[in-house]
Amino acid sequence: MAIQVIVLNGGSSSGKSGIVRCLQAVLPDPWLAVGVDTLIQMMPASGSLIELAPDGEVNVGPGFMPLQAAWMEGVAAMVRAGARVVIDEVFLGGAASQQRWQKALAGLNVLWVGVRCESAVAEGREVARGDRVRGMAVSQAELVHQGVVYDLEVDTTHTESLACAQTIAARVTAYSDFS
Amino acid sequence: MAIQVIVLNGGSSSGKSGIVRCLQAVLPDPWLAVGVDTLIQMMPASGSLIELAPDGEVNVGPGFMPLQAAWMEGVAAMVRAGARVVIDEVFLGGAASQQRWQKALAGLNVLWVGVRCESAVAEGREVARGDRVRGMAVSQAELVHQGVVYDLEVDTTHTESLACAQTIAARVTAYSDFS
Amino acid sequence: MAIQVIVLNGGSSSGKSGIVRCLQAVLPDPWLAVGVDTLIQMMPASGSLIELAPDGEVNVGPGFMPLQAAWMEGVAAMVRAGARVVIDEVFLGGAASQQRWQKALAGLNVLWVGVRCESAVAEGREVARGDRVRGMAVSQAELVHQGVVYDLEVDTTHTESLACAQTIAARVTAYSDFS
Amino acid sequence: MAIQVIVLNGGSSSGKSGIVRCLQAVLPDPWLAVGVDTLIQMMPASGSLIELAPDGEVNVGPGFMPLQAAWMEGVAAMVRAGARVVIDEVFLGGAASQQRWQKALAGLNVLWVGVRCESAVAEGREVARGDRVRGMAVSQAELVHQGVVYDLEVDTTHTESLACAQTIAARVTAYSDFS
Repeated sequence: MAIQVIVLNGGSSSGKSGIVRCLQAVLPDPWLAVGVDTLIQMMPASGSLIELAPDGEVNVGPGFMPLQAAWMEGVAAMVRAGARVVIDEVFLGGAASQQRWQKALAGLNVLWVGVRCESAVAEGREVARGDRVRGMAVSQAELVHQGVVYDLEVDTTHTESLACAQTIAARVTAYSDFS
Repeated sequence: MAIQVIVLNGGSSSGKSGIVRCLQAVLPDPWLAVGVDTLIQMMPASGSLIELAPDGEVNVGPGFMPLQAAWMEGVAAMVRAGARVVIDEVFLGGAASQQRWQKALAGLNVLWVGVRCESAVAEGREVARGDRVRGMAVSQAELVHQGVVYDLEVDTTHTESLACAQTIAARVTAYSDFS
Repeated sequence: MAIQVIVLNGGSSSGKSGIVRCLQAVLPDPWLAVGVDTLIQMMPASGSLIELAPDGEVNVGPGFMPLQAAWMEGVAAMVRAGARVVIDEVFLGGAASQQRWQKALAGLNVLWVGVRCESAVAEGREVARGDRVRGMAVSQAELVHQGVVYDLEVDTTHTESLACAQTIAARVTAYSDFS
Repeated sequence: MAIQVIVLNGGSSSGKSGIVRCLQAVLPDPWLAVGVDTLIQMMPASGSLIELAPDGEVNVGPGFMPLQAAWMEGVAAMVRAGARVVIDEVFLGGAASQQRWQKALAGLNVLWVGVRCESAVAEGREVARGDRVRGMAVSQAELVHQGVVYDLEVDTTHTESLACAQTIAARVTAYSDFS
């Protein structure tokens, strides 16, 4: 059965967004890209739902989780309605975060991809991006993978985004050929 | 029954985005904001799905409509899963565009809001925004309202975004009181 | 003698940037736009030079003023080398801020323009812009004009950016005709 | 004598901006960052001065060169007034572009740095950035270095931005020690 959803999970500055854009460029069909960043942009700007501490820690208010759950249902519904979707995620809760997506995406054919990057390299790329909040790359590098199960892992430490995307795309189109 | 979705429809540079942000600030509960701009950002950057002509005309490829339809189903599912959502839209197809949303949002309690702005004023604001593509404000000002039916209309020509949002919010909370 | 520099001074959310873009569109010659925002973008992202407090207050470190002074000399040199420049400024120091620019721009033909906006209206536009730091519009609305002397004042409370720009441009081109 | 200006020259997507942000983070003093992108942002949005063709070629109108020359004088004046400046440039004219900067920066202590990246890798990074205009990375990769003389060259093909910045910074602080 053809892959309908690709979930990329990795820490901040691990290179997920670049891989997503490359996937959209190399996959033969059009894929929609969604991610936790788009969810945050959809929320009110007041900062009561989610806030970045000066040390890079992510703090969420009590209203965040219900909206996130509703958003996940919405993403799953887009797939059920025929869209192919790449999800760019940061599993701050590790295995528990994956379980929430597994529940939302139940019955869909998902490719789970871990995006790894050595902590020191991710930290350097955080500096290169010029983000004013520093520290997220290091604090998330290992945390987000704890207990998470993948179909495929890529590592951006020494591999370009495009090459990682081609590895993922090869798996996606391989499934398609036999579908 | 409480309003679950607010659909704002208006031409480019009519002031919808400002009203959306004000609505998110003044409504007592958190509302998610989605719009055709977020859909376009989700699509591949190649330009084969949607393209802005130098005169401001919007051209969509054959792949656009199915993805848009799937996205609309996804937005409706977010609402059904409990999120309140403000939709920022440009009904380039007039009444036909509204019918597509009516179908997707069937069974939900929707407030349809028309956002008007005199064509010359919208054109001036397009210049003030510095967009490199000019002409959308004028070409869309009337077009997007043709045959569309509203619960409420606001006009940003002489009224600030915040005041327009307060008018809309008053209607939303009035319904809530009797729900 | 033809105007070589236009200095727009006004508080946050008073509408300066929109007027600048309209001026660039309506003036017959190309004008470069610079502003305190571009200076801040040029600085290191670490936040040790300038920081926005959660209440909207702007705090600058000891290293800020020397870099700002050097930048002002640079802007003046661009004008002396033949570029026409619009400067988008926030005179947090009132008359003292103007004096610094007067010194830097000595010998050049400057049009000093005050951009006013009623505090409550500017505050509403700050909400509409969705900035996460609120409070700057109100705290700066009067402060930045204290003791400042203008050739011309515009008020965006009830006048569009484009109309304000046309008023300013009329003054600029009037001078040109007699140069 | 201490280095006062660092000029980084490289093609589109060669990684200059990341190196600039890392330099600002690792150098002990605050350095201002300017570049051809900031110049373009300062110009009117109309597109008559500079335009990107769909194939990635950069076309400049007759008004571009005089404004660019004035901007270069302005940058040099910032340095003479005491600011340390990193310039992020694309020498589309090769040696002729360098000569224009040499003239503007006459008498200042400049470190000329070439930023190289293998054409195929830069092209992949262009895809990962999601720019709608493709082709600039390949067309500029060799062109911008023709006839240009450097004090130092870095190559981002297999080296991270931060490591490249540390190499450059070591040279800058070495000069400082003997000044």
